[in-house]
Amino acid sequence: MSEHVVIVGAVALGPKAACRFKRLRPGAQVTMIDRDRIVSYGGCGIPYFISGDVSDLKELRTTSFKLVRDEAFFHGCKDIDVLTRTEAVRVDRKRKVVATRNLDTGVETEIPYDKLVLATGASPRKLDIPGVDLPGVHAVANLHDAEAVRGLISTGKAGRAVVVGSGFIGLEVAEALAEMWGLEVAVVELMDHLLPRNLSPLLARMASHHLQEKGVELYFGEKVLSIEGDGKAERVVTDKRVLEADLVVLAAGVVPNGELARDAGLAVSPRGGVQVDETMRTSDPDIFSGGDCVEIKNVITGGSMHLPLGSMANRQGRVIGTNLAGGDAVFPGAVGSFAVKLFERNIAGAGLTPEQAKQAGFDAVSALVIQFDRAHFFPGKELMSLEVTVDRATRKVLGIQGFGPSGDALVGRVGAVAALMQKGCRAEDLSVLEYPYSPPFSSAMDIVNTVGTVAENMLAGLNQGISAEQFEAYFEGKQDSCFFLDCREPDNAGPYLTRHPGKWHNIPQGQLRDRLDEIPRDKTVVLICNTGIRSYEGQITLEQAGFKDVLNVHGGMAGLKQSGLDPLKQEEA
Amino acid sequence: MSEHVVIVGAVALGPKAACRFKRLRPGAQVTMIDRDRIVSYGGCGIPYFISGDVSDLKELRTTSFKLVRDEAFFHGCKDIDVLTRTEAVRVDRKRKVVATRNLDTGVETEIPYDKLVLATGASPRKLDIPGVDLPGVHAVANLHDAEAVRGLISTGKAGRAVVVGSGFIGLEVAEALAEMWGLEVAVVELMDHLLPRNLSPLLARMASHHLQEKGVELYFGEKVLSIEGDGKAERVVTDKRVLEADLVVLAAGVVPNGELARDAGLAVSPRGGVQVDETMRTSDPDIFSGGDCVEIKNVITGGSMHLPLGSMANRQGRVIGTNLAGGDAVFPGAVGSFAVKLFERNIAGAGLTPEQAKQAGFDAVSALVIQFDRAHFFPGKELMSLEVTVDRATRKVLGIQGFGPSGDALVGRVGAVAALMQKGCRAEDLSVLEYPYSPPFSSAMDIVNTVGTVAENMLAGLNQGISAEQFEAYFEGKQDSCFFLDCREPDNAGPYLTRHPGKWHNIPQGQLRDRLDEIPRDKTVVLICNTGIRSYEGQITLEQAGFKDVLNVHGGMAGLKQSGLDPLKQEEA
Repeated sequence: MSEHVVIVGAVALGPKAACRFKRLRPGAQVTMIDRDRIVSYGGCGIPYFISGDVSDLKELRTTSFKLVRDEAFFHGCKDIDVLTRTEAVRVDRKRKVVATRNLDTGVETEIPYDKLVLATGASPRKLDIPGVDLPGVHAVANLHDAEAVRGLISTGKAGRAVVVGSGFIGLEVAEALAEMWGLEVAVVELMDHLLPRNLSPLLARMASHHLQEKGVELYFGEKVLSIEGDGKAERVVTDKRVLEADLVVLAAGVVPNGELARDAGLAVSPRGGVQVDETMRTSDPDIFSGGDCVEIKNVITGGSMHLPLGSMANRQGRVIGTNLAGGDAVFPGAVGSFAVKLFERNIAGAGLTPEQAKQAGFDAVSALVIQFDRAHFFPGKELMSLEVTVDRATRKVLGIQGFGPSGDALVGRVGAVAALMQKGCRAEDLSVLEYPYSPPFSSAMDIVNTVGTVAENMLAGLNQGISAEQFEAYFEGKQDSCFFLDCREPDNAGPYLTRHPGKWHNIPQGQLRDRLDEIPRDKTVVLICNTGIRSYEGQITLEQAGFKDVLNVHGGMAGLKQSGLDPLKQEEA
Repeated sequence: MSEHVVIVGAVALGPKAACRFKRLRPGAQVTMIDRDRIVSYGGCGIPYFISGDVSDLKELRTTSFKLVRDEAFFHGCKDIDVLTRTEAVRVDRKRKVVATRNLDTGVETEIPYDKLVLATGASPRKLDIPGVDLPGVHAVANLHDAEAVRGLISTGKAGRAVVVGSGFIGLEVAEALAEMWGLEVAVVELMDHLLPRNLSPLLARMASHHLQEKGVELYFGEKVLSIEGDGKAERVVTDKRVLEADLVVLAAGVVPNGELARDAGLAVSPRGGVQVDETMRTSDPDIFSGGDCVEIKNVITGGSMHLPLGSMANRQGRVIGTNLAGGDAVFPGAVGSFAVKLFERNIAGAGLTPEQAKQAGFDAVSALVIQFDRAHFFPGKELMSLEVTVDRATRKVLGIQGFGPSGDALVGRVGAVAALMQKGCRAEDLSVLEYPYSPPFSSAMDIVNTVGTVAENMLAGLNQGISAEQFEAYFEGKQDSCFFLDCREPDNAGPYLTRHPGKWHNIPQGQLRDRLDEIPRDKTVVLICNTGIRSYEGQITLEQAGFKDVLNVHGGMAGLKQSGLDPLKQEEA
């Protein structure tokens, strides 16, 4: 018998490693085993199957040329043996065998290997609360969950859903249930804002505002205590309220399946992630691992992280396939890029959030820019928000996150910066980044350039900005010590002057130099315009005229409006 | 008097340099002069004004917050003096003065400078042929041209237009005239395919096919000899035909306006581009230059190039503004990224084409991939084509170009690669590039990753591909020595078997290993599938079985179809 490669786990990483290896060593024998009957599916498509965007579950199991990736496909097209309903019970590294059990028959078998790949994936984090096993409570970790959820809602009997967790999966499922099926949906999140591991509070606020406009209820900083009901889920009890629910979706993150590796004596992190080097080898050089069960290098911090994404699994699987064949491929680690569609808005990012950067010990500066996503004179342009966080000491870009209506356009900017961050990206690299320019797609000074220039100006101490949230705090709490100066043209400022007489002031930016005596020198002057361009220019003019305490609102009125903080819509006291 | 900066030219680079400098040195004096009455306009928007997408010319002159950038705007909002209708006649570097002439009054004045910026731009290449000055013959270099062309077509009297040149401007104007105004449009190009400086013949063929489907006539390899007509343009005479024309648009490229610099004794290249260092200083350290009149460093070749784009002008303008204020900003050169929208398709790219790479002396390998632009199970996905060229010796990515229906999605991929190329990008960097993944935007193994893996496989000698055009040549000319084997499923292959009996063969990829004896070993086996995935797998299977001469068609049937080469639609002999 020729070289035998055994792969435990047949979703994403496993098949990728197997197929790549077979292309390089067509004569070798590969056996792939999996507990499930269904293998090699696109798990990231589950929310879109629940929504109905993907009509048939089979579509998540087919190639782009419409062949279903089942055992026959792997046998015929790839010359790979797949054993389904087969669990890997134990790895004996001395004898180089995997002990397996057939989950239907109970029969145990030993499979010898020359090289082994552990692709055991991750499992939904279990909530240790009463009621999680009631009918109507589901995770969305595999196609069986997906079928169950869609089965339940397509009966038409579920009117209200509660989603526990506001990570990617939680939000995608919330959208699917609300948008396509018209369910009333509430999301409960333990942390104080949505996508807490991916967004700053400000961008999260923009996303929340949009979800709420779409009718999704959001409860932050709440802990789910129990799920109750008479023979099935009927309500979710949190530490603050009781929420009616016909369907409860648990989406409180996933944890790596590291038990098989740990039991075999391989190095596993305290969080349970299998530890691998940059060739994707575990502490045993004959055993590789990758995908949702491993920890990989965080290129920004130099530490390790768990990044369970299908894209990571595929890239790592290819590296494993190459190295199984004697190659020297390297997975360099990741900056952690992501994207998520939420109704008519989209979020994307890479690297650290402002908060994570500070926690990691960086002296970090964050710049927010709101600008049109293509030439401002081109039809169909929309406002995009980009926030970039840089390290004051090294000028290195630590992270970028964004929010906007055009997903492809947002993902493009974030993708360009994520690519650069992999190589080490400084603020000035963004300022000259060559995003392809043509008015239908981008601006001559594109938003990705502008956010670099604003970061550079902040590093140089030139641009003294406050965020929309800080503005709100000042506007509510510091009205005696602040002078709020709208430097837009009178037709924009007018309604605000009427709504907040005596508190809101207006001098167009172009008239500032001639009307300096209307501005008090003993107060903090807070300048605001549409998006922050004129207020920055205004700040320079006032500082040049000797004003000592001038701030401009980054993102301007657009940031306030997108965050649901428009002072025009403020409730009467 | 404080420091005085004089800027010659008030479009794009000039205003950007002036405004950046003033933000850093609010007390300094800046004078900007221009020959035109209209300044600081978005020239890249001209085709969209001609089409009507941009309804009012003023939109190309306004800020994103709707202020018109005229003399009063620069005076009030920027504290910058603008002298319009003023020509810079001469620069006296010893006395540090610019001699100017008012084009309305003829009055000559000398303006002293401490620092000077030459932003003299570029002019349309003049065609030295009879008839170029006839009424109805226009360039589209400024807003006056734009008004004239739109004025002519909006009378409704122009039924047929001829565009000379198939660069960006030529094609954008061709689309504007055909799509929005319903004109019959012909494009005449001297070179043998469109966008000859930006695309390979294959991608150009895809673009041509789409333009022809939209009714645009294309004539390649033709030289315009004269424009004829009785008091106005009526026809264009080429070396091959006569084309009727009510409107002739000259778009045969632009040449840098380097005369003022050359006359002042500054270093100017033989092509007429002002020579600058990476701080954008000319050979006189008190004189900066940038934008359409300079040559910049080509980061890929290390040589210099002329890259007249508004995006370049803005980035360079900011560098000049910083350095005027004593800073040490650097413009690192460019990889030459671009994008262009053509009806329902889009083209984008960066770096060298395959042909340019060979001309520059590289031993270059090009990989073409056609793949869906988002998860293949996600609604609305479309096929995108990406071609990447790498240097065999260093594995460096020399260029990338693409074609597809979703412009934002294409520009995003090209933008990410362009950003990386600036830092030095190798084939394997593409394979692991972290383009943000979520099914609505991208694939787990995204097209930008796949094109990297194909390039890697080609460098390793694994993937022996031919292009759609090569396939056509083989299919027509080498039918006796080739065995054409469709490795798709029978329902896809069926119509081709019927159309080309005896010449077209079909064995699905998954059955190849079992049906090897149906394949002749004395012929070149040419494998084809939908996009190239299965034909590559098939090549490996056949080579493993001892077949010596196997080729697979890169881009597969999708590439043939998009290039107008579908063997099903071939004319009967």
